[in-house]
Amino acid sequence: MPQGKPEQVPDDGLTTRQRRNRPLVLVHTGPGKGKSTAAFGLALRAWNQGWPIGVFQFVKSAKWRVGEERALAVLGASGEGGTVAWHKMGDGWSWVRKGGTEEDHAADAREGWAQIKRDLAAQTYRLYVLDEFTYPIKWGWIDVEDVAAALAARPGGQHVVITGRDAHPRLLEVADLVTEMTKVRHPMDAGQKGQKGIEW
Amino acid sequence: MPQGKPEQVPDDGLTTRQRRNRPLVLVHTGPGKGKSTAAFGLALRAWNQGWPIGVFQFVKSAKWRVGEERALAVLGASGEGGTVAWHKMGDGWSWVRKGGTEEDHAADAREGWAQIKRDLAAQTYRLYVLDEFTYPIKWGWIDVEDVAAALAARPGGQHVVITGRDAHPRLLEVADLVTEMTKVRHPMDAGQKGQKGIEW
Repeated sequence: MPQGKPEQVPDDGLTTRQRRNRPLVLVHTGPGKGKSTAAFGLALRAWNQGWPIGVFQFVKSAKWRVGEERALAVLGASGEGGTVAWHKMGDGWSWVRKGGTEEDHAADAREGWAQIKRDLAAQTYRLYVLDEFTYPIKWGWIDVEDVAAALAARPGGQHVVITGRDAHPRLLEVADLVTEMTKVRHPMDAGQKGQKGIEW
Repeated sequence: MPQGKPEQVPDDGLTTRQRRNRPLVLVHTGPGKGKSTAAFGLALRAWNQGWPIGVFQFVKSAKWRVGEERALAVLGASGEGGTVAWHKMGDGWSWVRKGGTEEDHAADAREGWAQIKRDLAAQTYRLYVLDEFTYPIKWGWIDVEDVAAALAARPGGQHVVITGRDAHPRLLEVADLVTEMTKVRHPMDAGQKGQKGIEW
């Protein structure tokens, strides 16, 4: 049960308030469930604080986040908390006009990351959910050193949560919080198929 | 990345549809972050399906879930998805009238569990979030065999997600899905205090 008590206080010259408000890079990785759902759960807290939230989905999948997307759209439009901008790779990032030709997934991913860098520099959002962002890094589409540098250089109080399996070791290094979701038992192992309300 | 493909198909005589719709008991445990946030992320999917959701908080804490509670209240009242009923121990379960005397936490927990059993029997909700329910079991306030029996006997298509550290081994046995959240690195280890939008 969380108590909010640090185990030690560092000799870093910062006040408690400065440390308290330090922007964080969070990584949810590992083979278990809950990496993205926990990130979207975190978005509920950010919404409640009135923070603008930017979601960037890096893996094309028609149904896996539809519940979260609709819920966050309703929350963002409610006027009672923060705003929510939801961007998807594959369906076309919202700021990209597709020519209708065949897609280049790597170029799509790089374009998404370029936009995130612009948003970080402009402080567009207070919470960034980079959903399944570990994969384009793993696949070599996006340079992890460029990611590390952009995260380190981001101004203001911007929090970034990155989800996906097999997070690059460099990403773990630059993260303030890494949680590994471990699969202890999974119904798909016993022939259970994914089902609505649970998997999407 | 989830593919929705079972690793094996059991010889249980069920159709794919029957297996697909099998109600699940999910346990989020372990020392890492994200156990409850992933459960509330799951609630977004349930909400999107139009399911009635019942949240039962078993540990009294003023601020830790305030963002999730407010977000789910707005979603539940939006009329665009399922309903949300949020019950808290300590502040007084909503169906209990307190006499103003000193609280008996164990009795409170047992009263909460008794209500859950009534709701399961009545199929009041489609998704139950039993937040930090592992603790009253661990502390001996609630009999784990009674929990196992009630979960096994629940009718219909009711999904139950249970969060908290140190889940009882019996609880893991009856679960269809167990995810352990492991702490790889945590900012509180480096003197970082909990902060708004992230911890609550």
